[in-house]
Amino acid sequence: MSALLFARPPRIVVASGYLVGMGNQPLLIDGEWIAASADADFFNASAPATGESLPEQFPVSPWSQLDHLLTSAARDARELAQTSPVQLASFLEAYADAIVTHTDELATLASRESGLPADARFVQVEIPRTLKQLRDAAACARDQNWRQPVIDTTANLRTQLEPLAKPILVMGPNNFPFAYNGIAGGDFAAAIATGHAVIAKAHPAHPGTTQRLAELAHEAATTTGLPSATVQLFYHCSNEDGLRLASDPRLGAIGFTGGEKAGRAIKAAADATGTPAYFEMSGVNPVGILPGALRERPTEIARAFCESSLLGVGQFCTNPGLVLTTDSAGLDRYLERVRATFAEHTSGPMLTAALPRELDDAVQGLLDAGATLVARGPAPSADGFYPRPAVLRVDARTYLADPARFQREMFGPASLLVVARDADELRTVYEHLDASLTGSLYSAADGNDDALYDELVARLAPRVGRLLNDKMPTGVAVSPAMMHGGPFPAGGHPGFTAVGMPASLRRFGALRCYDHVRPHRLPPTLQDRSPFPALWRCIDGTWTLGPVPANDR
Amino acid sequence: MSALLFARPPRIVVASGYLVGMGNQPLLIDGEWIAASADADFFNASAPATGESLPEQFPVSPWSQLDHLLTSAARDARELAQTSPVQLASFLEAYADAIVTHTDELATLASRESGLPADARFVQVEIPRTLKQLRDAAACARDQNWRQPVIDTTANLRTQLEPLAKPILVMGPNNFPFAYNGIAGGDFAAAIATGHAVIAKAHPAHPGTTQRLAELAHEAATTTGLPSATVQLFYHCSNEDGLRLASDPRLGAIGFTGGEKAGRAIKAAADATGTPAYFEMSGVNPVGILPGALRERPTEIARAFCESSLLGVGQFCTNPGLVLTTDSAGLDRYLERVRATFAEHTSGPMLTAALPRELDDAVQGLLDAGATLVARGPAPSADGFYPRPAVLRVDARTYLADPARFQREMFGPASLLVVARDADELRTVYEHLDASLTGSLYSAADGNDDALYDELVARLAPRVGRLLNDKMPTGVAVSPAMMHGGPFPAGGHPGFTAVGMPASLRRFGALRCYDHVRPHRLPPTLQDRSPFPALWRCIDGTWTLGPVPANDR
Repeated sequence: MSALLFARPPRIVVASGYLVGMGNQPLLIDGEWIAASADADFFNASAPATGESLPEQFPVSPWSQLDHLLTSAARDARELAQTSPVQLASFLEAYADAIVTHTDELATLASRESGLPADARFVQVEIPRTLKQLRDAAACARDQNWRQPVIDTTANLRTQLEPLAKPILVMGPNNFPFAYNGIAGGDFAAAIATGHAVIAKAHPAHPGTTQRLAELAHEAATTTGLPSATVQLFYHCSNEDGLRLASDPRLGAIGFTGGEKAGRAIKAAADATGTPAYFEMSGVNPVGILPGALRERPTEIARAFCESSLLGVGQFCTNPGLVLTTDSAGLDRYLERVRATFAEHTSGPMLTAALPRELDDAVQGLLDAGATLVARGPAPSADGFYPRPAVLRVDARTYLADPARFQREMFGPASLLVVARDADELRTVYEHLDASLTGSLYSAADGNDDALYDELVARLAPRVGRLLNDKMPTGVAVSPAMMHGGPFPAGGHPGFTAVGMPASLRRFGALRCYDHVRPHRLPPTLQDRSPFPALWRCIDGTWTLGPVPANDR
Repeated sequence: MSALLFARPPRIVVASGYLVGMGNQPLLIDGEWIAASADADFFNASAPATGESLPEQFPVSPWSQLDHLLTSAARDARELAQTSPVQLASFLEAYADAIVTHTDELATLASRESGLPADARFVQVEIPRTLKQLRDAAACARDQNWRQPVIDTTANLRTQLEPLAKPILVMGPNNFPFAYNGIAGGDFAAAIATGHAVIAKAHPAHPGTTQRLAELAHEAATTTGLPSATVQLFYHCSNEDGLRLASDPRLGAIGFTGGEKAGRAIKAAADATGTPAYFEMSGVNPVGILPGALRERPTEIARAFCESSLLGVGQFCTNPGLVLTTDSAGLDRYLERVRATFAEHTSGPMLTAALPRELDDAVQGLLDAGATLVARGPAPSADGFYPRPAVLRVDARTYLADPARFQREMFGPASLLVVARDADELRTVYEHLDASLTGSLYSAADGNDDALYDELVARLAPRVGRLLNDKMPTGVAVSPAMMHGGPFPAGGHPGFTAVGMPASLRRFGALRCYDHVRPHRLPPTLQDRSPFPALWRCIDGTWTLGPVPANDR
């Protein structure tokens, strides 16, 4: 495997001042693989399954390299904004095809760095999802529906979303080496499909996988004739340089998926320059089990909860971290099932060495605050980053004394059950929920919970981006009607989604109005007859695939 | 007039701790007119035409009053989010009708506080525009198209924009006592139509007009049965309290129109809490006159420029503050016309005492930087806030030595002409433009400028929200296809517009997905058959007014 890694970079360039060491992995800057200077800092990823450091050394880029990335991307940004949608789509499709060809290799690399199963997770699920996103984005480039043209023939005004004509910085999280990767995930696909250069930051938990993806992306970009700085990659930088990058006025926008602490710092840096920045930072995803549902199907709901909570070692931003119910019929059977599942669950490893420790700390923090253990998974018997899954319980009175303390996200296979005395107290708990990506409500099939449902949903809905019925939150469908976001700090801006096209593409658009612009100068998508047969336009209040009516011209 | 002012407040309440003094004008808090406490600070507006202070004293609210506004609005926010669109529309229409009934009175009040002509400006232009905005917003509430529902029947996901369920703070500018007023303008109308409580801040330049509007709004809200804190008003507060208000987590969003300095401070406060905030802060609105157009119709363009520059005493955010051209045929005739118009132009007064002084300082600053005077209006012969209109000129080489210095907005009837040696140098000037709301290009009718146009527009378009051909920027049509905004700091977020419905309404929406939510629990706009016959929905990729097709249900 390490031989493969060393062999991979197709064009190592020893630029002036840069030196390629044995384990010194190069960055992708302006179409060339360039090694960091020898005096750079380096880091190694780890193999979660064993806890061992992986041999490849990845550079912590100094500002000079970040500046180089920015300069190159800014230079190509205007050309990319004018690049034909067909060419952008061809790139995305060629890249997807390359990922198909290298699926097994990529899955093996990602499994090595993440500890997640190569086949069950990557080959079967995450890589297909990533391919769908890249191809959906290509389709969106081809149909151009992300622009939402609005035409007023009376006032002679034509408006649509257009590229920012500046590069986009995409920073992916630790938990999706493909589907949210800075150089392969949804933000990347959305940025490219709308005609932007991407500066991708690898997550340091899977730099090798990201490097391999960058190679495939770069080859596809070269083959399809895109400018040399269309896709660029770095792995790491100091916090100070990262914030400097986020606030650089040469940047057009930022897409960030990850933890709240880093996200808040980056948001502050971007806000200072007025750079649009989109964040997906999670939350506890409250799941309410109403009394009728608890009585009706406690075991079924417990089974769904356990599956959702333990899926992917609990490392999802939509993990059900908070379950809310009442002390009523069915609770014992619910707990029994949860206890049995968690007690016997042998967990896979987490993504980094810090995560099991942080999970232990979070569990201890809840115990200190007055929660009790419902179930805890067995202690790990192997080396590696193995967590002990946990379900805790707290009564609503204790919870309500300090709701913020009990809503801190526990990243991993752990969840807190809040038990209210009755429906009244449950209502009060719903008054004290922080923002989350999702909120689920399980209610009785016979309608017995409907009155309470209405009261709870009025409190829950404004706090979440996605509202679910009788369903755990972990599945995030790639659909035009998905909303993966939420009020701050679950998301960055409540009006935008990170998943679901073309909506996610619109984050990277600037609204531009053409006021009495001569017809031959209008962009193709705004001309009387657009050359895009599947482009919906709102012409004088009517959405249509057709041209501007002749009598209006 | 002052008797009228004192007689106006319909219900003066002397709340505990509050005292109504003779000239002490009350705030509208939670449905009651409440006077500030006697120890509050007060301010007076001025009559620009004479420079005299007006007699009414308006309070500078302490934090306790702002907190009272917030508490009341937050309490009513959930109810407003559930209020029927018909009721919201009825309020907006009743309010518009009341403004119609009181047009003359309102125009007189506004003229007294602004120095702008009651009939020509307010009765003829700005009040009709305001009425159109209120009624358009009512129509948007009735048709619900701001929600943009997206339905995926296969994945059983239904998504739309929904109210934030928190109040919106609207801060209007000095230059539009009606059309952008915090309690009557576009942001106000958009916030109400989407089901939000509005906390309006009067601009201290026209508190009396704003108070009268608030009375009419409050009466209409009461008549139509809206919650008591639907419309609230304060006049002024300390900078510290204003920033505290902007960063209060009880607030759902902010709409701000005004100067860049205040806007940046408010944006930083809102950003810290993650509150969506929308800004319209102007810029210099570059107008390019290409060599062919200058040769072809110098006098016609000069006439258009003078009219646009002097309109409303130049106090528009779309004022043409920067004109860019080449030293070529037609320039002399252009200058001759501009010089003649400005030299003989007797200006009306500006909105506040500070503005003519600031304009003088700005003119002097350009002179110090190397610009020269083309024309200056006559010195004012009366007391009052009269400016001396000015056109300055600088060669492009001097401009390019410090482009930021020459792009500082001069609020008022003043503009800088940058003369490039040739087309090459003009291109370079366009490389150094800051963000603006608009960018205009005049080019030859015979096509001689087309090659240069293409080069300039590639540089100009990414820097502006609205691109105009052969047209000055001051007209901002109220149209669904308008974009009144731009890259920061001209606007707040490049994807949003402050004018043009329903787009401006979407700023106040939170995207929410219904994932497997039981059909009877879906909001009406997302049900298989929506009760809104004019609501366009994107169902499985097709925009339609119809129901979800039966075979998909």
